[in-house]
Amino acid sequence: MFNPMRHQKINHLRLKIGICLLIALATTIPAMAASPWQPLPEVAPAPASNPTTPAKVELGKMLYFDTRMSSSGNVSCFSCHNVMEGGDDHRSTSIGVHGHVGGRNAPTVFNAAFLSSQFWDGRAATLEDQAKGPPANPIEMGMANLDAVIDRVKNIPGYKPYFEKAFGAGDVVTMDNAAKAIAAYERTLITPNSAYDLYAKGDLKALSEQQARGLATFAEAGCTSCHQGPTFSGPQMPPGTGFFMKFPTFQDSPYAAKYDFLSDTGRATSTRNDADKNIWRVPGLRNLVYTAPYFHNGQVHTIDEAVRIMGSTQLNKELSDAQVADIVAFLDSLTGPFPVQEMPRLPPTPGDLLD
Amino acid sequence: MFNPMRHQKINHLRLKIGICLLIALATTIPAMAASPWQPLPEVAPAPASNPTTPAKVELGKMLYFDTRMSSSGNVSCFSCHNVMEGGDDHRSTSIGVHGHVGGRNAPTVFNAAFLSSQFWDGRAATLEDQAKGPPANPIEMGMANLDAVIDRVKNIPGYKPYFEKAFGAGDVVTMDNAAKAIAAYERTLITPNSAYDLYAKGDLKALSEQQARGLATFAEAGCTSCHQGPTFSGPQMPPGTGFFMKFPTFQDSPYAAKYDFLSDTGRATSTRNDADKNIWRVPGLRNLVYTAPYFHNGQVHTIDEAVRIMGSTQLNKELSDAQVADIVAFLDSLTGPFPVQEMPRLPPTPGDLLD
Repeated sequence: MFNPMRHQKINHLRLKIGICLLIALATTIPAMAASPWQPLPEVAPAPASNPTTPAKVELGKMLYFDTRMSSSGNVSCFSCHNVMEGGDDHRSTSIGVHGHVGGRNAPTVFNAAFLSSQFWDGRAATLEDQAKGPPANPIEMGMANLDAVIDRVKNIPGYKPYFEKAFGAGDVVTMDNAAKAIAAYERTLITPNSAYDLYAKGDLKALSEQQARGLATFAEAGCTSCHQGPTFSGPQMPPGTGFFMKFPTFQDSPYAAKYDFLSDTGRATSTRNDADKNIWRVPGLRNLVYTAPYFHNGQVHTIDEAVRIMGSTQLNKELSDAQVADIVAFLDSLTGPFPVQEMPRLPPTPGDLLD
Repeated sequence: MFNPMRHQKINHLRLKIGICLLIALATTIPAMAASPWQPLPEVAPAPASNPTTPAKVELGKMLYFDTRMSSSGNVSCFSCHNVMEGGDDHRSTSIGVHGHVGGRNAPTVFNAAFLSSQFWDGRAATLEDQAKGPPANPIEMGMANLDAVIDRVKNIPGYKPYFEKAFGAGDVVTMDNAAKAIAAYERTLITPNSAYDLYAKGDLKALSEQQARGLATFAEAGCTSCHQGPTFSGPQMPPGTGFFMKFPTFQDSPYAAKYDFLSDTGRATSTRNDADKNIWRVPGLRNLVYTAPYFHNGQVHTIDEAVRIMGSTQLNKELSDAQVADIVAFLDSLTGPFPVQEMPRLPPTPGDLLD
């Protein structure tokens, strides 16, 4: 059975080791001493089985924007994970093919590369696994199965040279390679060097006074029990591990009923295990101003309210208005900058592709 | 009543004047003499009321990609006019909000800036007018009216500085300005310098032997009666004029019934004038390899078949296989290059925007 507390213990140990290292470092580099906080790395880690290469990223970006892998030909990864905005779709829950409406809020693709599990319920271990989910989901991209998806790609002859450039000669136009390419592209969708990151790297003036106070409040109130590490989604762990928490932990919080947080049972819907009821992957907190509305059902409109809810449902605390304002100011320091991207050019469509 | 023949006469006159000028020029610049063909200009014309500026193009590109101006929040100009591919959507007819399916094939946005009317039936005089159509169309973007569209924009505070940069201070977040900005962006979506354009500018080696033969066949067969000018959509005329033709002209062509070309009565659906029955704007012929399937109802899958159909329905001729192959080779010379574009960054969404 999954035990979220175990991961917290592991992380507390890591945090302690990290702090010790930082203190040791402080004797030689004083500017680094003040911050036990972890900045987002400037390069996302990639698995040994799928090193990030420019050719994969180029192909993956094409596939990410290509609506032709949906049954109706008008839904792509980009439809719900809009990299021109916050990496999500600003709806409470997403719309897929033929107007079908999904059940959960689209998580942002930005910095997903740093998470050790994917989807709200953590049912995919890696970005590669995740990329194979939506295309054959009847509500999302609506293809009959993954064979049908890759057949669409094969029927667009212009894709072949890009697969060969990324994966070599031979029978390389495969769903596995398509997913690898998309994952490689997604590993470039990261937002290091926010004001917080600069602060964590030692530039103590990068945060405003209120933001610095908010950071302290965030830690003191207990938010960092879960929201820690460079993405504030929990400690860095091997892919597939995931970092989960019960939400709401305090189910008698008035917010639980107000926003209908309990009816979707979270991780239990994929594990079919009662012990996973209302267990969710701890979401990251970067770029929140771009990812409203909030929570798994997208029922909460503002960051202020989201912070208040977390205090109540997870810490059993009523945060003061001043605390909320300071924490929100700190969270704002976790925004951007976003990667500058050139639009891909997609190969032409045979006229009978969608028939 | 609209008289397409009048426009042809005007154009024949223009063509003659153009040829005379070219002959005159030939005495001093021999390399220019061989081609009476018109290349696509490298800059699209803009009306005096909306000169193209970098600030308008920047804002227009943002609005073009912004799905938040649709009722469901997931349909933008880009949804049906995909500038990463052919400027259309590779479907026979488009899908708008909530899975609603439209009645006509999405025309490409590329080089629309050169046309003297917009939409298949020419019901919009300018790109500015056209941009106001889809947002309040119940099938396309589904907003109640244009006031509701601009209210959405106003409710995204991050847009205001971009409107002010493009249009000055004051009450500038208006639907008229939004349409002007989108039109300004669309005037950058042009594809000069295709192989044909280089040929038309005097580089006679830019076309292959077959393409040059196809060009001659295209003219000799009579295709240039309608498909002339830099876009091959008819002569350059003032905005709002339009260049129209009856399609099918020869209604007893077997293709008329085979592809159901008559049931949509074209321009008559917007003018409510019987004389406009089956009258259509003459479409351009650039980048055809990217814009399958073809014709107003998107029922034809290949360029070869489209060429055969045109011979039969418009010229009452059965083109030989060799003629078709040569014309198709020539049409291929009208493709690209497409403008390299950076992705826009869209301002963040207030959490209650779509409620």
